Amino acid sequence: MDLWDLKELLAIPTISAHPEQALAMGQAAEWLTDRLQAIGFPLAEKRVTPGHPLVYAERPGHPGAATLLMYGHYDVQPVDPVSEWDSDPFQPRVLGEYLYARGASDMKGQIWAFLRAVEAWIQAEELPIHLKILLDGEEESLSPSLPGFIAEHQALLACDFLLNCDAGILGQDAPAVTYALRGIAYFEIEIRGPEHDLHSGSFGGAVPNPGHILAGLIAGLHDASGRVTLPGFYDDVCELDEEERKSLSKASLKDEDWLRLAGVKGLTGEDGYSTTERIGARPSLDVCGILSGYTGPGVKTIIPGRALAKLCARLVPNQDPCRIRSQIETYLSRNAPDTVSWEVRELMRGPWAVTRRDSCSVKAAIRSLEATFHKAPVLQRMGFSVPAVGHLQSALGPEAIMMGFMLPDDHIHGPNERMHIPTLLRGAEAYARFLGELAGGERRQGG
Amino acid sequence: MDLWDLKELLAIPTISAHPEQALAMGQAAEWLTDRLQAIGFPLAEKRVTPGHPLVYAERPGHPGAATLLMYGHYDVQPVDPVSEWDSDPFQPRVLGEYLYARGASDMKGQIWAFLRAVEAWIQAEELPIHLKILLDGEEESLSPSLPGFIAEHQALLACDFLLNCDAGILGQDAPAVTYALRGIAYFEIEIRGPEHDLHSGSFGGAVPNPGHILAGLIAGLHDASGRVTLPGFYDDVCELDEEERKSLSKASLKDEDWLRLAGVKGLTGEDGYSTTERIGARPSLDVCGILSGYTGPGVKTIIPGRALAKLCARLVPNQDPCRIRSQIETYLSRNAPDTVSWEVRELMRGPWAVTRRDSCSVKAAIRSLEATFHKAPVLQRMGFSVPAVGHLQSALGPEAIMMGFMLPDDHIHGPNERMHIPTLLRGAEAYARFLGELAGGERRQGG
Repeated sequence: MDLWDLKELLAIPTISAHPEQALAMGQAAEWLTDRLQAIGFPLAEKRVTPGHPLVYAERPGHPGAATLLMYGHYDVQPVDPVSEWDSDPFQPRVLGEYLYARGASDMKGQIWAFLRAVEAWIQAEELPIHLKILLDGEEESLSPSLPGFIAEHQALLACDFLLNCDAGILGQDAPAVTYALRGIAYFEIEIRGPEHDLHSGSFGGAVPNPGHILAGLIAGLHDASGRVTLPGFYDDVCELDEEERKSLSKASLKDEDWLRLAGVKGLTGEDGYSTTERIGARPSLDVCGILSGYTGPGVKTIIPGRALAKLCARLVPNQDPCRIRSQIETYLSRNAPDTVSWEVRELMRGPWAVTRRDSCSVKAAIRSLEATFHKAPVLQRMGFSVPAVGHLQSALGPEAIMMGFMLPDDHIHGPNERMHIPTLLRGAEAYARFLGELAGGERRQGG
Repeated sequence: MDLWDLKELLAIPTISAHPEQALAMGQAAEWLTDRLQAIGFPLAEKRVTPGHPLVYAERPGHPGAATLLMYGHYDVQPVDPVSEWDSDPFQPRVLGEYLYARGASDMKGQIWAFLRAVEAWIQAEELPIHLKILLDGEEESLSPSLPGFIAEHQALLACDFLLNCDAGILGQDAPAVTYALRGIAYFEIEIRGPEHDLHSGSFGGAVPNPGHILAGLIAGLHDASGRVTLPGFYDDVCELDEEERKSLSKASLKDEDWLRLAGVKGLTGEDGYSTTERIGARPSLDVCGILSGYTGPGVKTIIPGRALAKLCARLVPNQDPCRIRSQIETYLSRNAPDTVSWEVRELMRGPWAVTRRDSCSVKAAIRSLEATFHKAPVLQRMGFSVPAVGHLQSALGPEAIMMGFMLPDDHIHGPNERMHIPTLLRGAEAYARFLGELAGGERRQGG
């Protein structure tokens, strides 16, 4: 596995959201299957799902060793707006120390680094651990086929440890292990007023305007202290203890880093918590989209008949994603005036995932990163959600960690996505150490 | 002028908002010019503007008579969604007592009825009054060329009375004269937060969300009593006196009519005023559109970088449309948090128009409607805005009234627009009487 291989993989336009890329998805799954076999996986195959194929591979390691399941995804985000890219997103290009391409950082580069580490072990002696690899073709489309596959293949996927390589570090010399991800619940709410759009002159001032009513409902979702007002939203939230807050404060980016990364003039959020805590360890509720009435160029003088919002809740232990819907319904039934009707549609939900910071896998990750970067990694919680991790963890029961080598300025999901090549090579080194440390840690624990 | 003529005019797709209909606009202007000449207007011509052409015509009446300027428009609203029409919007169709076509009611039908009345006078004896006719090709696009034309042609347009036929009555047997229209000021406001859309997981809970902030600003535009909170908004508003309130209460549709027309479950608005007063005699502020973030199907987990709203203020005497912009700016500077930036763009403004209820033209309209409908008309204020009327009134100084024969359920601006043929013929009769009454009233006033 050299950089030519990575470039080949990056050249396949695996945009899972675009049905017309089904051929590319199949092509990439076969490319991965071929490479896994070539590296030395006796079992490596494309698995059909109702959506895009999964790739599954396994290779036994030292007799008596524990089993690690590595999860990753080979699909990528769409590339719109293509005009903002400086080069073709699917013609990988090296510029300075960076490799530019859609998926370079999220996460074909990470898959490549992990396989490079695995290849090194196989070539040098033998895998220190039994290894299973599961590569999703639908992660960027929220993994609709994965829960069904996991449920049907619990024995196949059984493992002691779970590694998700879709993760990052804080800087080129700032290694990190991620031990927690937030869960998610995503909704569409619709307010319906007049049967049709009305003339704003002939009716303005006397009829309920769904745009105003939706605006009031969105505005009321947070109180003055930045807390979410959905009834019961915080009931199941685990408070951080002082020791973890201290640990997280070491892990954190500074506020000036967050300001720069977000491109905002100021930060905000729930009173009493740092930015890192707000993002990693506290739940949030954000409107992702609002649409009402006329939004094209120029003037249209109407009172809209409807108003729609998309709402994304990010959840932390022990919030149940299944309970948010009824909280929103209660909120709307209490606060929406009876001059309008409303509807809530749940579009997705996924569990949070947390591993104890003193678990074997976290410790193994710390040792491997420290040996590679000559610096102790920080332990971090990430704010985003990888439902696959929660699903695998709850179905199979293993410890799960996230260890990957994305940098904060890799422009994932945006134009000019890139991967820092020296960091990727260091990542391969760290993964190689991790496989050994995990096996060693297991032996230490067992011994 | 018989119904075949009206059908010919209705068949020309004069959608002024669609540049590709420029040919149709010219065709309709020539059709009108030809007909005006044929009826007996010695001067009838297409007048070029920076936009679509105007049609101007004049014919002298009895020596020493006063001059009436009739204003109308031959352009129509777009027809989207065409799929909701039961027949082609530009293939006029008679079904029962109704003529269905885009523009049948708004307002080619009204032009036809007025010209039919004029033709009858000319054929029978002579026009009792000097008549000038100005037909706008851009009213549905907010008459951008009209103010310039008026300013350049004050002498040409000089008149004693001004009639806008773009108006309606309350029902088939409920005649009405409109003596007031609201003014308008229309804005786009934009809130900018993060430089780009952000991942709602990686940043949610810690960065300002322009969608929430815009929602709060929209929600704050009205207080609990339904009053607009823009600083100074009511400073110049003339309160209704008791006598006019009593008069309006006779004019009004019942609340159950408003509910049915609007298709809403309940009415709302400024405390202390009736629905008719809220719409006709009180200012209002409505959001016509809101757009932020992702609004397509399914899920996109972002914090939007921007949020946009379109706002339409409807204004009453003596509010100055020019002052609303700075009121919005003051409101935003007081209420928008400094974590975001904002911008206000004024997209249009137009004056209100009011004529004294005891003016000659109102009295003439009352007499002509009473004689035609055998019932006293109500005197009404309408909530919509026809900036042309205010512009003509302020540039030329005449009394202005609105008398037309749209019915509330003619579906103007919507699918299946129609005109009630018996009402249209009655309208022609009332216009014929109006020309005589106006001349007679003028003579009475002068005598």
